[in-house]
Amino acid sequence: MISLCMHGCNGKMGRVISQIVAEDPSSSITCGVDLQSTGTEYPIYSSVTDCQEPFDVVIDFSTAAAIDSLLAQCTSLSKPLVLCTTGLSEVQRQAVAAAAEEIPIFYSANMSLGVNLITALCRKAASILAPAGFDVEIIERHHNQKIDAPSGTALSMAEALKDELGDEYFFELDRSAKRQKRDPKEIGISAVRGGTIVGEHTVLFAGRDELVEIKHTALSKEIFAIGAVNAAKFLLGKAPGLYDMTQLIG
Amino acid sequence: MISLCMHGCNGKMGRVISQIVAEDPSSSITCGVDLQSTGTEYPIYSSVTDCQEPFDVVIDFSTAAAIDSLLAQCTSLSKPLVLCTTGLSEVQRQAVAAAAEEIPIFYSANMSLGVNLITALCRKAASILAPAGFDVEIIERHHNQKIDAPSGTALSMAEALKDELGDEYFFELDRSAKRQKRDPKEIGISAVRGGTIVGEHTVLFAGRDELVEIKHTALSKEIFAIGAVNAAKFLLGKAPGLYDMTQLIG
Amino acid sequence: MISLCMHGCNGKMGRVISQIVAEDPSSSITCGVDLQSTGTEYPIYSSVTDCQEPFDVVIDFSTAAAIDSLLAQCTSLSKPLVLCTTGLSEVQRQAVAAAAEEIPIFYSANMSLGVNLITALCRKAASILAPAGFDVEIIERHHNQKIDAPSGTALSMAEALKDELGDEYFFELDRSAKRQKRDPKEIGISAVRGGTIVGEHTVLFAGRDELVEIKHTALSKEIFAIGAVNAAKFLLGKAPGLYDMTQLIG
Amino acid sequence: MISLCMHGCNGKMGRVISQIVAEDPSSSITCGVDLQSTGTEYPIYSSVTDCQEPFDVVIDFSTAAAIDSLLAQCTSLSKPLVLCTTGLSEVQRQAVAAAAEEIPIFYSANMSLGVNLITALCRKAASILAPAGFDVEIIERHHNQKIDAPSGTALSMAEALKDELGDEYFFELDRSAKRQKRDPKEIGISAVRGGTIVGEHTVLFAGRDELVEIKHTALSKEIFAIGAVNAAKFLLGKAPGLYDMTQLIG
Repeated sequence: MISLCMHGCNGKMGRVISQIVAEDPSSSITCGVDLQSTGTEYPIYSSVTDCQEPFDVVIDFSTAAAIDSLLAQCTSLSKPLVLCTTGLSEVQRQAVAAAAEEIPIFYSANMSLGVNLITALCRKAASILAPAGFDVEIIERHHNQKIDAPSGTALSMAEALKDELGDEYFFELDRSAKRQKRDPKEIGISAVRGGTIVGEHTVLFAGRDELVEIKHTALSKEIFAIGAVNAAKFLLGKAPGLYDMTQLIG
Repeated sequence: MISLCMHGCNGKMGRVISQIVAEDPSSSITCGVDLQSTGTEYPIYSSVTDCQEPFDVVIDFSTAAAIDSLLAQCTSLSKPLVLCTTGLSEVQRQAVAAAAEEIPIFYSANMSLGVNLITALCRKAASILAPAGFDVEIIERHHNQKIDAPSGTALSMAEALKDELGDEYFFELDRSAKRQKRDPKEIGISAVRGGTIVGEHTVLFAGRDELVEIKHTALSKEIFAIGAVNAAKFLLGKAPGLYDMTQLIG
Repeated sequence: MISLCMHGCNGKMGRVISQIVAEDPSSSITCGVDLQSTGTEYPIYSSVTDCQEPFDVVIDFSTAAAIDSLLAQCTSLSKPLVLCTTGLSEVQRQAVAAAAEEIPIFYSANMSLGVNLITALCRKAASILAPAGFDVEIIERHHNQKIDAPSGTALSMAEALKDELGDEYFFELDRSAKRQKRDPKEIGISAVRGGTIVGEHTVLFAGRDELVEIKHTALSKEIFAIGAVNAAKFLLGKAPGLYDMTQLIG
Repeated sequence: MISLCMHGCNGKMGRVISQIVAEDPSSSITCGVDLQSTGTEYPIYSSVTDCQEPFDVVIDFSTAAAIDSLLAQCTSLSKPLVLCTTGLSEVQRQAVAAAAEEIPIFYSANMSLGVNLITALCRKAASILAPAGFDVEIIERHHNQKIDAPSGTALSMAEALKDELGDEYFFELDRSAKRQKRDPKEIGISAVRGGTIVGEHTVLFAGRDELVEIKHTALSKEIFAIGAVNAAKFLLGKAPGLYDMTQLIG
């Protein structure tokens, strides 16, 4: 049994994690942190250091603005942290790396098992197919309320592919502005928006008369919650350091 | 049996049409027009009016620069014309309309039966789904040698959808340049490029927890050649006027 | 404002409809019918005829066993009925048709707007593409708890296609049992099962080097609930008769 | 420069390989073997041992009936063999293994780089996702002239997945014959047939609200020819043994 402190417990993902944990006999949330102090079955505090109940790991789904303070609180308590908030600045990423010298931190742009698995599969595919002349494209589809395009997950996958393929590769976000043949070093990224689509990511490798496509579809936000809880279990008893889904997938 | 004059017979599509007709017992090419005068089993001339062999219909797959002269030649001979060249200017389109008062002209942005059918299906779908709150997106995929993006066919489908949905709809070609929620009046168009993909067009209607997708895949250029020959057969004996795939589909 | 009696209000779909109506300012449920008499904000009775509150239309999502009695109750009260229960016997279908001579009944194998729309689109596509030599296949995907295969919706779409194409067409559910080329009159139906997939139906038209695909994806059961409520609104004030989504789509 | 003997040179794939090699400056076919002795630019013999021209490697795309004799010829000449014929009996597979103790033999159910890559990716995906409760399904689509279903490639991929997942897994080819929930140990295989589809294979991993799909599309038979020539280059200078695409992918 693992006991959790839920940082951002009244946010959309905080509530989904609360539901998932309520159904899971091997985990429980003993306390939460949020601006509003009601609405959950467990007590809510204004900071992790204020929490009265014992807990093993902190799960965070909040906002970038809250992260500096959160890192300080977790290191002062020596508590492992699953950090799911996205959109951190470069300075904040360095702060995460520094904190990870004192406590174990799990940090991933996307908490779903499937997205992280296909990122690994796409690296492998790219290493084989790009030398054989295949072009690489990413197409993502999300709901019509999403304000960023491309998605953070698509950019993260593109970064992984660029890391695999070499620095001469570059991202192409808008082909309509020019009239020329595709550069073999392009990684095209297309963002489709509509309805209530939770999230789809397809990586296309297109060669001479041959296509390989690797696709992930999220059907609900639950999968990110499940990933966060699994990450917390993974982190229990680990040495200080920065962990991500790569280690969890193994 | 229909006899044809192939205008642009040494071009890529001219040669595909020559092959299709060679296999078709109900059509034949009696003469061609091109800059080079060799390479086919039928004689090649420098203009339609020079042709010595009898023919019923002219099929054209050439370049926009050749169209003004071609229209003059066909009207002077009173010969029906299947006009497959794309990228005509607004002035040229008016010249086509004027010529169609004297001869029957079949003019379509895409000669495939399937593309024209799905355009009709998408109009019907849009008329039902847009009032029910569905968003409309177009995704097309083509080979890495294509210089224009989005494809002419995707733009033509988007125009048909806009015509169906109303003038307040507009095209969105690049979402990465802004950070805001999707406008319900957007028709998003994404262009994917890679390998030797002949041509794929998907129209996505995305509503509340519900998706409708209508997709066309071309597996070879043959389908455009078959469409052109079928259009020629359709045009035989027709009165002067402007015809397109809508009439052929019925 | 329309007031509804929810027959089968404690079932899975009954509860989803209760939620949908609770969010909809133009409809309300005044009473329900179910075996268990608690669990809703409105009173529950053991039959429609017992209900004390006024209502305009009955929506039914129950079981085939309850339908004979339900038809008798609705005709005795002269109440319109939206009948969403599937798996009716041939005798029951005749009873539905007989009851529809006295009251308006809306009866559809699938209550989603999208599924019914694509069925209409597939009829149109089949009428154009089958004469041009295209083969027709249906592929459906559902969750791993579904016991029937193919889905009732896939069979209903196949019936519509057969009705369009002619009686010589037949369904092919298992190709592995024989070794022979595809018969042009086959309508292949494939059933894929896995995870929590709510429901996907794809109709593929495959011709010479050309594919047309029409696909519907349900992302939650809400869409069937929305369809049922829209059908109830449509039925209000209608003459006795049998109605389905074809009329609602128009 | 590698020189090749093409066994089955007048067959469909033999002719495609001849075209591919004609365009490839680093390979040439010096002689062929087939029943008909004309139709190619190189001389054709009735057996590999009759060939007068020098060659480095034999590529075979013939029929299962010709394989016993072919193995004897290659071992007697100590020539490496790329064996692309499918449908070998169990006894023949043992004969291949025995011959591979004397000469290097490359033997693969599918010669495309992409299909073999996705088989490897699917093994990896299955090892991560099956323990997390994901179901595994294979859907393949081929042209309407194919007589076997499922395809040999689909069965080969299913075997690889079973090898990865354990002997308790089994293949499910027809769900319509029973009425029950999906067994978690099923590997469902669906065969879709239509038009001129060259070959598509999709492996679906379906979990709780999450899908991973890995898909390969062949757009022409050229890709199998390219794979065979690459295999021949790979085999040059290798020690006796049985090789397959796994080694070529590395």
